[in-house]
Amino acid sequence: MIGRLNHIAIAVPDLAAAAARYAGPLGARVGVPQDLPEHGVTVIFVDLPNTRVELLHPLGAGSPIAGFLQRNPNGGIHHVCYEVDDIHAARDRLAGEGARILGDGTPRIGAHGKPVLFLHPGDFDGTLIELEQA
Amino acid sequence: MIGRLNHIAIAVPDLAAAAARYAGPLGARVGVPQDLPEHGVTVIFVDLPNTRVELLHPLGAGSPIAGFLQRNPNGGIHHVCYEVDDIHAARDRLAGEGARILGDGTPRIGAHGKPVLFLHPGDFDGTLIELEQA
Repeated sequence: MIGRLNHIAIAVPDLAAAAARYAGPLGARVGVPQDLPEHGVTVIFVDLPNTRVELLHPLGAGSPIAGFLQRNPNGGIHHVCYEVDDIHAARDRLAGEGARILGDGTPRIGAHGKPVLFLHPGDFDGTLIELEQA
Repeated sequence: MIGRLNHIAIAVPDLAAAAARYAGPLGARVGVPQDLPEHGVTVIFVDLPNTRVELLHPLGAGSPIAGFLQRNPNGGIHHVCYEVDDIHAARDRLAGEGARILGDGTPRIGAHGKPVLFLHPGDFDGTLIELEQA
């Protein structure tokens, strides 16, 4: 069911410094900051030949990654995102096998304008998994 | 400098259960367990169309992931691995920019039979980065 790894998301305490590390010492192609107020984050994408790294920083009050950065003040890998063909079919399959879907189970429009869901990390070895309809 | 994302490594407390989750609810192509005693881990690869997930479980005494699982008993994302063309050139570039290389800075042969290095997570937003010569 899961397809491509769409991205790895890394929560960072200083977005400009993180971008400079990926552009400089790591020598990757790094984009410009994008504010996504409806998601409570500012993101910078790092383009790799086969996937992307999404650098995440809180934007505004109540950001969904604020708590993570409080617990991990140096930052850390926040989630991984796998593509699926049909987000509703994916949800039903996972729920039918007992996996917990975060929120009310209704896909919402994610940071890339496509329907997404998040799976409870307690059901997947401590890994927060985002599913995005490709 | 960094190229493809070679893999994401997830440390798991129960390798068979983790593999069953990726093969079952997530519907991915999951390999068979491989003991790597010289690395202190047993691994199972999950093949995605564009990269791999490496499920890691401690093998033997003194496994390099034992401490991580003690701190994260449910498991968690342990590291990400980026490919580089020349591991020595990568090391020199990173060290020259002040990044700390783990160990004595000498590339060793990694789990895939290729030279690897690990970068200190304190220099990369709490992310343990492995570099593998492709």
